[in-house]
Amino acid sequence: MKFALLFGGASFEHEISIVSAIALKDVLKKDHVFIFLDADGNFFHIPSEKMKSDHFSNGEYKKDTKLTLVRGGFEKKGVFKTSRFEEWDIIINLVHGAQGEDGTLSSLLDFYDLPYIGPRKEASVISFNKWLGKLYAKDLGIECVEFVRLNIDGNRTIPFDFPVIVKPLRLGSSIGVSVAKDKKELDFALDVAFEFDDEVLVEPFLENIAEYNVAGCYAKGKWHIGSIEAPSRKEFLDFEQKYLDFSRTHTIETAPINEKLTEMLEEAFKRLYDPLFAGALVRCDFFVKDGKIFINEINPIPGSLANYLFEDFICVLNDLAKSLPKNRKIRPDYAYIERVQSAKGPKTRYSS
Amino acid sequence: MKFALLFGGASFEHEISIVSAIALKDVLKKDHVFIFLDADGNFFHIPSEKMKSDHFSNGEYKKDTKLTLVRGGFEKKGVFKTSRFEEWDIIINLVHGAQGEDGTLSSLLDFYDLPYIGPRKEASVISFNKWLGKLYAKDLGIECVEFVRLNIDGNRTIPFDFPVIVKPLRLGSSIGVSVAKDKKELDFALDVAFEFDDEVLVEPFLENIAEYNVAGCYAKGKWHIGSIEAPSRKEFLDFEQKYLDFSRTHTIETAPINEKLTEMLEEAFKRLYDPLFAGALVRCDFFVKDGKIFINEINPIPGSLANYLFEDFICVLNDLAKSLPKNRKIRPDYAYIERVQSAKGPKTRYSS
Repeated sequence: MKFALLFGGASFEHEISIVSAIALKDVLKKDHVFIFLDADGNFFHIPSEKMKSDHFSNGEYKKDTKLTLVRGGFEKKGVFKTSRFEEWDIIINLVHGAQGEDGTLSSLLDFYDLPYIGPRKEASVISFNKWLGKLYAKDLGIECVEFVRLNIDGNRTIPFDFPVIVKPLRLGSSIGVSVAKDKKELDFALDVAFEFDDEVLVEPFLENIAEYNVAGCYAKGKWHIGSIEAPSRKEFLDFEQKYLDFSRTHTIETAPINEKLTEMLEEAFKRLYDPLFAGALVRCDFFVKDGKIFINEINPIPGSLANYLFEDFICVLNDLAKSLPKNRKIRPDYAYIERVQSAKGPKTRYSS
Repeated sequence: MKFALLFGGASFEHEISIVSAIALKDVLKKDHVFIFLDADGNFFHIPSEKMKSDHFSNGEYKKDTKLTLVRGGFEKKGVFKTSRFEEWDIIINLVHGAQGEDGTLSSLLDFYDLPYIGPRKEASVISFNKWLGKLYAKDLGIECVEFVRLNIDGNRTIPFDFPVIVKPLRLGSSIGVSVAKDKKELDFALDVAFEFDDEVLVEPFLENIAEYNVAGCYAKGKWHIGSIEAPSRKEFLDFEQKYLDFSRTHTIETAPINEKLTEMLEEAFKRLYDPLFAGALVRCDFFVKDGKIFINEINPIPGSLANYLFEDFICVLNDLAKSLPKNRKIRPDYAYIERVQSAKGPKTRYSS
């Protein structure tokens, strides 16, 4: 199975997508190609040896082969003829944040009929929009931290005590997120968050709470769930820490938790995953408080695909590649139009 | 304002989209072009005079000019050169059902940066998936009929009395929908619905209930809400009736309801619309029972855009065209990559 790692995108997470792709290059070792989506919506085939971060920051990538999305794949223009860019079997969507995680790329790849590992459009919308994600989880019986949704033009009243955490409603990473300890800090935190989205989510900030990350997928008839990680973090993960987090390639130690909690976390993961997230390798970040599990967020494209949580990551990817959700092919048959036409008499020119 | 009516699509509603476009041709009169999306994902410019239903059912459309989606618009290939297809200002998304209403086309148009009237991807996913739509409406304080979600592989137990109505979870129209009066009819109805989706919604079927349709949009700083319609229907609208429904062009009489109910319906409409459906002309279908309003469904692209509910439909479209939601343009600045690079020392080749 030869993967095409699709990364970049017009998003605030553009850079960490590059970092993520470079990290996966080291993990996958061989049999893969790199397709960069720049901020203007152009695709480029990046040769493996050029997969260094400065290749993108200095714009050198523009000299690489430009690709055009066509039905079933990509085309590359040569000097004399246009040919198919064939050197891959399946795409891995590694575009974090906008475009990659909001449903745009999944729609594009579905429309042009390219096979890919990554969240489908419903899964994307539900995880990218933190409010809709909470409604989804709650209806599945998974607890969420309480919240209030504020609009850029509306009032700034919050119905719970400080400290609170303020998040742009739609970003994938920790950008624009901050903790506020009083009204003044809240105002500042809201100003920051509204830079990124017209809607913002405010939640009570839970201190000294246990956090566990569970990553996995359902593939080839069984669950592949990685080691459960207890992330060690400061107050919360800011962008710079997140940046480092996206480049991780080393296996971690499983969190020292008992069997019952492990089971509860895995059970919650499975309920959130199935069937909406089929085709994706997902990481769910949970809080645990007084023995109760709360979902914090669903990352449908976690940094470097959370490779460091799996014993045999390549095997998981290969299995997932063989278990992608099928789109029902719909062929219109014009039965009704024909019926209306025949009711009006045959061969009329005014059949509508 | 010159509109490009985009219609067709790979969906079970392919035919009614053709009907819808033909109906709008009569309503808009001039200043518009027609772009047909066939079931294989090809775009064609259809000359106005060829806008008859048999042009599509007999495949004649394939001789029309083929268009290619490119950044900011469409290209057409001539014998000697490729040129821009320029004769429009804004697209109207008239692709009913899959692709048009599920978020695929909105993603495509956003990605390629084409201006369009129609639901954005979140609005599409929320209205196309009837389950997610209920979660959305409920959280906004709008009542929904109770329901149970069944999976094609799961059990068929329903927690309420007959009659019930069975609906594929994701179709835009009444296709695959049926009413069941007992267990045997339910089994058959489920078999039918599972032909169209792996997930199905079952609700109590409310008999002799008042139904009202409210269509409108928010544009140029104000609400444009059409006449409230009390649809006259049999048990429920089957596909053939729906077909006729999509070709309507004549203004209807306003439903004879009192001021208070009108206000309640419009209030519910506005709450459901704003801000998620910005950019679209939407029709919400409500039930009223014991003075309480229930949302039945949100149609983000109603048949022939519910033109028959508006006094000056063209004026509404022109206003809407000038009030489209803006996508925030994101330019990656590589600040973090540069910081990491400089920490590692300048000009290293191993900057990742």
